[in-house]
Amino acid sequence: MSYERKNISDLQAYVPGEQPQTGTVIKLNTNEHPDLPHQAVIDALRQFDPELLRRYPSPTAMPFRKLAAQTHGVTTEQIIATNGGDELLRLLLTVFSEPNGKGIGVSDPTYSLYEVLAAIHDTPVTRIARMEDWSLPGDFAKQLNDAGVTLAFIVNPHAPTGRLESVDTLREIASQFNGVLVIDEAYTNFAEHDCLELVREGSGLDNVILLRSLSKGYSLAGLRFGYGIASTPALIQAMDKARDSYNTDAVSQALACAALGACKDVAGSWKKIISERNRMTEELTLRNWIVLPSQTNFILAQAPGGIDDAVRIYQTLKEKGIFVRYFNHPRLLDKLRITIGTPSQNNMLIGALDNMN
Amino acid sequence: MSYERKNISDLQAYVPGEQPQTGTVIKLNTNEHPDLPHQAVIDALRQFDPELLRRYPSPTAMPFRKLAAQTHGVTTEQIIATNGGDELLRLLLTVFSEPNGKGIGVSDPTYSLYEVLAAIHDTPVTRIARMEDWSLPGDFAKQLNDAGVTLAFIVNPHAPTGRLESVDTLREIASQFNGVLVIDEAYTNFAEHDCLELVREGSGLDNVILLRSLSKGYSLAGLRFGYGIASTPALIQAMDKARDSYNTDAVSQALACAALGACKDVAGSWKKIISERNRMTEELTLRNWIVLPSQTNFILAQAPGGIDDAVRIYQTLKEKGIFVRYFNHPRLLDKLRITIGTPSQNNMLIGALDNMN
Repeated sequence: MSYERKNISDLQAYVPGEQPQTGTVIKLNTNEHPDLPHQAVIDALRQFDPELLRRYPSPTAMPFRKLAAQTHGVTTEQIIATNGGDELLRLLLTVFSEPNGKGIGVSDPTYSLYEVLAAIHDTPVTRIARMEDWSLPGDFAKQLNDAGVTLAFIVNPHAPTGRLESVDTLREIASQFNGVLVIDEAYTNFAEHDCLELVREGSGLDNVILLRSLSKGYSLAGLRFGYGIASTPALIQAMDKARDSYNTDAVSQALACAALGACKDVAGSWKKIISERNRMTEELTLRNWIVLPSQTNFILAQAPGGIDDAVRIYQTLKEKGIFVRYFNHPRLLDKLRITIGTPSQNNMLIGALDNMN
Repeated sequence: MSYERKNISDLQAYVPGEQPQTGTVIKLNTNEHPDLPHQAVIDALRQFDPELLRRYPSPTAMPFRKLAAQTHGVTTEQIIATNGGDELLRLLLTVFSEPNGKGIGVSDPTYSLYEVLAAIHDTPVTRIARMEDWSLPGDFAKQLNDAGVTLAFIVNPHAPTGRLESVDTLREIASQFNGVLVIDEAYTNFAEHDCLELVREGSGLDNVILLRSLSKGYSLAGLRFGYGIASTPALIQAMDKARDSYNTDAVSQALACAALGACKDVAGSWKKIISERNRMTEELTLRNWIVLPSQTNFILAQAPGGIDDAVRIYQTLKEKGIFVRYFNHPRLLDKLRITIGTPSQNNMLIGALDNMN
């Protein structure tokens, strides 16, 4: 017999990008940073005191929260540390959305995990289509309010297009929306601006939570460390009650502190990726791809020959050991999402495309 | 205004044992192993390839699952790896218990996190009192079925008493119970037997999940690594769909493999703790404490002078930098739960008690 809840039986699980566990492929499919983590992180790993493995970690990740607060100009009480950004997303649903309630709101297309988490939580999803240019519609907040949702997610810069919304646009949505607005800034390190001013003192907003991740900007996808920055301590307190009691481990807390502590240095690597992103945009444009201007560490590129071409190129690249991402979404069928790798990896991708024709 | 769900507003959060972050106290309050992790674990930490920090980890923790399957005589499909045993507990509620449904069943007293997780999930708890000798009542399964619960938790060996139920008792409960029975074996490394035969091929049961943790037996409380062993792959598949997509990180997967791979060696440390546990039981009994026979790495000891004595001793020990655990539960008010430390720590506790009188 089957014991699980019906919504779980019915669930289509989240499908992560392929993670081949050999070192010989070129992985441009899951937006990892192409460089090793900063030396300070590697030093923290090498010097980690094994005595701290034996003991329970700080349940609230206090050293990291203090550092993050200082780094971002907010208070410790506005920060929560989580086991990857994904845990924060799940926790947001747990705390701010009733199962069988009015559900959550997202812009469409978006990070597909939001919908999976809603299905796990057994709550509906209101999908609000992005405009032709992938911007948010002017009545986004009104549509959320009309649907009665209590929680909404905007990934900014946007995945999978790379588009960045202005702070003013997001401020207006937050001030009009009746629920909690999550701005998922997983890719913010590669963008021209972030939305920190919406959570800093004086923003006048009590309903904004920024999601940050060390996976992309800090080359730490393997570590699973993310955090939230909320416009009020009350939002954090509510999540703190509902998270797993020791949700982040001692090693990841130490390495996360080392990474964020080196943020000024690491910023140099973001500039290199931005430069490569701009170069790849030019290279593909020269080859008749239509590439959206991106503010992330990936580009969304429309294949010259449309859907069949996109599928063929995706498959052929895969056979050559070059992984990019293809999405089965009506507006994305003729496009590939390509992570920016090292200059040499990017050149190999261009070379492979040239050899295909 | 307040944005969180009412059940979260109303929630009394789980209170973990105190975790003073200085090295000078004697921590006998959260059942950590007194020794460092096995050298193989420390080697795995020192030799960890930083390239694996950069990339996403194996989403299914496959290398660990293979090793655990081999170690325990089950198949890989019967194993799930989680971010501490606590994540497994939460996941069990998510998957096998409807919010606003008939809820979960527990024996009382028990690990207090079960109730907190139920409150977060907004589902009720049926508490079935343990007998005078802390055994489970003979109609335990019937009481669960009468209450209509779909998920029940038994910690075995039992916390906080240290009592061990027989495999036959648990087999009978599992075969009579209409829902999923979780046997929380967090302390099994210190017990005379475990319940593996209930999940191995031929058990005839389709509703049993064992919880294992590396926190206690493997000196890895700081790492957050636990796992479940289910009597059927169907139970694991359902949880696999609902867990966070990369729930365990690359470092903890590697260290967990090293730890479990050294299980035969580590067993020597369990014998030492068992020997110290038996010595401490004798020492305290000599001093007129009533100590329950324990099959764990802690003892539950009733103070010679009753409730006031227990509270006074708890406080005085704390002032001396010796932390033990006190529970505000009607049947535990005159008792202290004392983790077994190193021989020297245990002697210091005895010395402190002797100096108090």
